[in-house]
Amino acid sequence: QIDMQKEKILTKKVALIGFGIIGTGVVKILQQKREELKKKLGMDVELHTICDLNITKDRGVSTEGIHLTSDVNDIFNNNEIEVVIELIGGYEPARSFTLKALDAGKDVVTANKALIAVHGKELFAHAAACGRTIGFEASTGGCIPILRSLRESYTVNNYDYIVGIVNGTCNYILTEMTEKGLDFQTALKQAQELGFAEADPTFDIEGVDSAHKASILATMAYGKTVSFKNIFHEGITSITDDDISFATELGYTIKLIAYIRELNGAIDIRVHPAMIPSTSEIAGVRGALNAVQTNGDMIGYSLLVGNGAGSLPTASAVIGDLLEILRDRENTSLSDAPHYPPPLGYRTDALKEAKVLSLSEVTGEYYIKCSVIDKPMVLSQLSGVLGRHEISIASVYQKEQDKGEYVPVVIMTHIATEENIQNALQEIKKAEYCKIANIIRVFDQL
Amino acid sequence: QIDMQKEKILTKKVALIGFGIIGTGVVKILQQKREELKKKLGMDVELHTICDLNITKDRGVSTEGIHLTSDVNDIFNNNEIEVVIELIGGYEPARSFTLKALDAGKDVVTANKALIAVHGKELFAHAAACGRTIGFEASTGGCIPILRSLRESYTVNNYDYIVGIVNGTCNYILTEMTEKGLDFQTALKQAQELGFAEADPTFDIEGVDSAHKASILATMAYGKTVSFKNIFHEGITSITDDDISFATELGYTIKLIAYIRELNGAIDIRVHPAMIPSTSEIAGVRGALNAVQTNGDMIGYSLLVGNGAGSLPTASAVIGDLLEILRDRENTSLSDAPHYPPPLGYRTDALKEAKVLSLSEVTGEYYIKCSVIDKPMVLSQLSGVLGRHEISIASVYQKEQDKGEYVPVVIMTHIATEENIQNALQEIKKAEYCKIANIIRVFDQL
Repeated sequence: QIDMQKEKILTKKVALIGFGIIGTGVVKILQQKREELKKKLGMDVELHTICDLNITKDRGVSTEGIHLTSDVNDIFNNNEIEVVIELIGGYEPARSFTLKALDAGKDVVTANKALIAVHGKELFAHAAACGRTIGFEASTGGCIPILRSLRESYTVNNYDYIVGIVNGTCNYILTEMTEKGLDFQTALKQAQELGFAEADPTFDIEGVDSAHKASILATMAYGKTVSFKNIFHEGITSITDDDISFATELGYTIKLIAYIRELNGAIDIRVHPAMIPSTSEIAGVRGALNAVQTNGDMIGYSLLVGNGAGSLPTASAVIGDLLEILRDRENTSLSDAPHYPPPLGYRTDALKEAKVLSLSEVTGEYYIKCSVIDKPMVLSQLSGVLGRHEISIASVYQKEQDKGEYVPVVIMTHIATEENIQNALQEIKKAEYCKIANIIRVFDQL
Repeated sequence: QIDMQKEKILTKKVALIGFGIIGTGVVKILQQKREELKKKLGMDVELHTICDLNITKDRGVSTEGIHLTSDVNDIFNNNEIEVVIELIGGYEPARSFTLKALDAGKDVVTANKALIAVHGKELFAHAAACGRTIGFEASTGGCIPILRSLRESYTVNNYDYIVGIVNGTCNYILTEMTEKGLDFQTALKQAQELGFAEADPTFDIEGVDSAHKASILATMAYGKTVSFKNIFHEGITSITDDDISFATELGYTIKLIAYIRELNGAIDIRVHPAMIPSTSEIAGVRGALNAVQTNGDMIGYSLLVGNGAGSLPTASAVIGDLLEILRDRENTSLSDAPHYPPPLGYRTDALKEAKVLSLSEVTGEYYIKCSVIDKPMVLSQLSGVLGRHEISIASVYQKEQDKGEYVPVVIMTHIATEENIQNALQEIKKAEYCKIANIIRVFDQL
């Protein structure tokens, strides 16, 4: 049996590149929990160096005893530093720094979804060649342990589908629109004021961030890489308060979802707003929370919910990876690299590029909303267009309008092909009776 | 870079003790997914031996090529077997078999909550002394990766509280009572017919099973062991359809919960039915699903939901552990045992027995239901008793009754001490105007 008193506590030196919001959370936690972590790990974690372009700015956290530098080589050239935490975000120089850290025999922990989604295969292969690893749990779903669960817990499962709410900004905006009747612009402004959205929110509200995360989930769940450029993504900027109130009346909640499944040997992967039955659990995931639902052949239904962003929740996930890696460095010899836990759940060399299903090939139910001239025969003309495109109508809703030439009409369809829907939509948009027309995909199966 | 073609695939031999419902799931998965697992692990997992008292019974699964035996020594004496999966349940002989397997240099995977809750400290210490480990993710929450998340992902967190729905039988019964208006006995019978409850459901419906799981959660979240005998547990047998309908009207859902928090250096740990706001996400966890909500100082709110029982979901969790251990056996040398992942999240020798808060010391809000004689002054007498015990009334509800001498009265209290509530309850039960009186604890904070 182990005697903690007698045993020498190892000190492990780590470094941080990127002293931003998440980086500050990492510094805070490593200081605040240093003594406690010794009890859990039997090791002392020392944050040795922090590198950032600006090292003088006050982040409201003590940096006493920490080497502050703007020269990243201070980290790569220091053989005592075992793990590098990369929190600068974006593709470059994050990619080069990660490669250099691995070359220098260091493991890397990152929260950078863009980096992993786009350069993951290269980075993991390089890590394996160096006998090192990359921790990236924080890159998808913040503190939700979805990646570790896919890799370590649900390992034997094949998935019917995976559906995630993986962008807190969008979920916050849609929740405010739903619960307080705000329009998109007001909700976005409020999110920015509260720090839930960045000054330039494009990546979030256009679905790019969610698509990065969908790519990571797809690889881990289906063992294939997916080129980011092949992922269909549509944001939430065209969702109106009208859509929200129609959805509510019809028993649906609008969420920006990342949806992934395997269909006839291809991967159906996409990010877009969807109408989800309000009674489903994932529809109840409110505000800035994230959630990932996995339907596995062995586990069945599973839902993990938590904070998908924010300084401390994300930093908590970063440090979870850091501690696992520090422990593994003591346990694992470099020559054993072939048996190192494969970060993506599959051996890198076994990963092939997925055939991605074109959205036009999928089928589903649709909400079609048009703003049409309030005249007899318009509904007949509308349904005529749908009929010609083999789209069968499940129900039609019309809101009474006090004044104005145009009235909103909502059509819920039965199962139709995306291709037919898009063709019908183009035709409707061109019709002289129609001002605006758009669609939202309906996910009745959730 | 690793070349899978050239590399020799290791074969790993494992054995199963206990060929019951979960054991059959394990056999099924290891056969069905054998080829796929090679891709994920780079190893071939061979189920070499199955030991059970009855090895001739047909479990509807092929055992071709597997050594079937009733002599457990066939496993302990076979040096090629690296991991033993223990699925016999209960304290003995599960405990002795686990110790013997560890002595023989094998790691152990189990789904046995009773074993881990009551003998965990002894077993983990023995495992550490042998340089081996015990996987037990399946013991709590079935396929929900809550234990691995506490240990590996949420590692740096301290918890405000942990609340779990960790018994699928009870959750199924309560959901049926709530949604279909069934009484307890009918719902239980239905659960038994559908295989959600055992022939002898005592451990489930009396809260014993949940208390075992609460003990495991408490140790991993707070780093202290909790003697099982110190855990207050109350089952769901006294919940009536009346209680359910009062709860629904008041906006609550009744769930059997395991609740754990640290209060003034002691652990408040208990299993009992509770009224939870129906709008909370955990209240929406229906049927045989389980869920664990953790509120951590870094991650904030987190909720993990999934199947807490059943052959394949539980077997999936068992095999998750098995695969991790097989990989670690290749990576880790026995002499490095001090740095082996501590199964309970804390070093075994750092675990001290917790001071457990007596239930009488806690405070909360309460639902008090009495069946009283329908006469003037009875409500005045009732409130008099509560007043004398310093219990302040928040609201009173009375259901109109068509006939009968007794009418149900429900009192919702403000915050009161459990001690005062129990004293008042005893007094009310003795009063001549009262036929039945009972309480349900209210968890407004969820």
